[in-house]
Amino acid sequence: MATIQDIADKLGISKGTVSKALNGASDISETLQKNVLETAVELGYTKLRRPGGQRKLCILIENMDYREAHQFGYEIILGFRQMAEPAGYTVEIVPVTEKLQKSASYDAFMLKNDYLGAFVLGFSLSDPWMRDFQTSHTPAVLYDNYIMANPHTGYVGVDNSEGMELAVEHLKRLGHRKIGYLSHALGSHIMQVRHKAFFYALRQNGLPADSSLAGSSYYTSQCMEKHLPRLLKEGVTGIICSHDLIASAALVQCQQMGLRIPADVSIIGFDDLPICAYTSPPLTTVRQERVQLGKSGYYALESLMNGVAIGTLLLHASLVVRQSTGTARKKTDPAE
Amino acid sequence: MATIQDIADKLGISKGTVSKALNGASDISETLQKNVLETAVELGYTKLRRPGGQRKLCILIENMDYREAHQFGYEIILGFRQMAEPAGYTVEIVPVTEKLQKSASYDAFMLKNDYLGAFVLGFSLSDPWMRDFQTSHTPAVLYDNYIMANPHTGYVGVDNSEGMELAVEHLKRLGHRKIGYLSHALGSHIMQVRHKAFFYALRQNGLPADSSLAGSSYYTSQCMEKHLPRLLKEGVTGIICSHDLIASAALVQCQQMGLRIPADVSIIGFDDLPICAYTSPPLTTVRQERVQLGKSGYYALESLMNGVAIGTLLLHASLVVRQSTGTARKKTDPAE
Repeated sequence: MATIQDIADKLGISKGTVSKALNGASDISETLQKNVLETAVELGYTKLRRPGGQRKLCILIENMDYREAHQFGYEIILGFRQMAEPAGYTVEIVPVTEKLQKSASYDAFMLKNDYLGAFVLGFSLSDPWMRDFQTSHTPAVLYDNYIMANPHTGYVGVDNSEGMELAVEHLKRLGHRKIGYLSHALGSHIMQVRHKAFFYALRQNGLPADSSLAGSSYYTSQCMEKHLPRLLKEGVTGIICSHDLIASAALVQCQQMGLRIPADVSIIGFDDLPICAYTSPPLTTVRQERVQLGKSGYYALESLMNGVAIGTLLLHASLVVRQSTGTARKKTDPAE
Repeated sequence: MATIQDIADKLGISKGTVSKALNGASDISETLQKNVLETAVELGYTKLRRPGGQRKLCILIENMDYREAHQFGYEIILGFRQMAEPAGYTVEIVPVTEKLQKSASYDAFMLKNDYLGAFVLGFSLSDPWMRDFQTSHTPAVLYDNYIMANPHTGYVGVDNSEGMELAVEHLKRLGHRKIGYLSHALGSHIMQVRHKAFFYALRQNGLPADSSLAGSSYYTSQCMEKHLPRLLKEGVTGIICSHDLIASAALVQCQQMGLRIPADVSIIGFDDLPICAYTSPPLTTVRQERVQLGKSGYYALESLMNGVAIGTLLLHASLVVRQSTGTARKKTDPAE
């Protein structure tokens, strides 16, 4: 393992300066500190932990609300802390920006801040650190993002294929034969996974799986104006959505078009946000157990820190059946 | 939660008899004991744990050798015990037969023997308990078998897709364009997964993915006599195998046919059994970290016992490059 001397030798500076830079002393320039950190990472240097010293983990978060109990990230963070804190870790929540990611590599950021591992929430495929994660050495568990073949990085999420299978099976059992899909833009790993899982589930159930049955847009309003009417025109009687918020918008939009839910159209969401019980009618949805996701995130991170290279950890999905799904409208019904 | 009284009421027998049956008293007939256990399971009865009493887990195993250090199951069991025993569990290894599985349901067997959870190794799709696992309530983690939508059952294994991707990428980088696949019969979950993953990896890498490029047989000898010559005739220059033992047989068979490994044909195995380092030439293979698989099995089982419904836990695969793979033979080479 590399020592402070190795870093000093490589950069041609004194051990004292390296040590100061690693500990963020104020009399070291930002450029020099960055240089020292990147060199330390490159050489595989790890700070020695003082006995009794703090053991810190961080939750890196963006694109996800988490401060209030009804928000998606709240329970994920809660579950993670419920496992990590009794095990003796301090957990710090770090909102992440693109600027922060560009200011240092992921490994250098972690080394500088004495974090032993990270639970990464809400990253999109275009985030700068997503590239770092392919070769980084500091354990990282990514919620809903998969990194191939890096033994220090794992993926935790709900089993989207199972979720889609449960949703499609449910609609099929209710007599639906033509099922559509509305989703956010396919710019994130998870949107791509759900999109693929939807079509896979259709084929598994022997239902038509034409690509015209799906529509995705960056904005929910676009989804409603452009894709929803198109799907209805194509004759779908059931619609599965990539998120509850799209589903609840579709619910309202259908009703404004004079359609009854579920008599004319059945709608299924994804996530089971607290709001689902209070839409009108209450929304059938695929549930992600968010506290369990947080706990699994900790399990996976602990494994990575112990050298067990967990790559993927998926929770069972479950379908919460409420009132937005019902028997399919018969083809012989007059158009209403 | 159901009580002993509930079981007694349901069967119209005394509490004392139920209690004796649950504890395996010798003066209770086998039929009556079976009836009591099945009723207890049906009603959701759980034995009360005495303070300080033993907490027992079991490893249910078949179709897998494990008694000696060079055998596949040895390190898996070691890893599991390395986690479970320090956590206070007694681990019992239970070789399983079809007869045992037919003698009681999985839940009844676990209840009768006071096992809190099971790590299940080597089961095939036709095993009677595989059906039980779809609805069972006693936590079970299955190595290399996936059960959908049962929150009490999880699947642990290596990421076969990643493994195949690494193997195919490696051969592609060495200039191979036509790659074949030899596997055991597709009667197990994992053989189906690897087969699918092989073709997926070919397509991902823009290589020909005709179904004639794969051959599978129940017996290795059949694979060698029937499929290997056919693949070579089709012009494959690289062969990936579903198991190291098939790969090492293919190595010998090719050499007996006068082909040089890797000058004429490259061969890749799967598992990284200890033997791989000692074949001639030593075998390039996809590694399953067996100690880590055992540890992950425990992680997943502990999670299930704590109500965290882990469905799938996949370890990162890695490719161990030895001497059985090399630059692809050029098309312009004269046939040798």
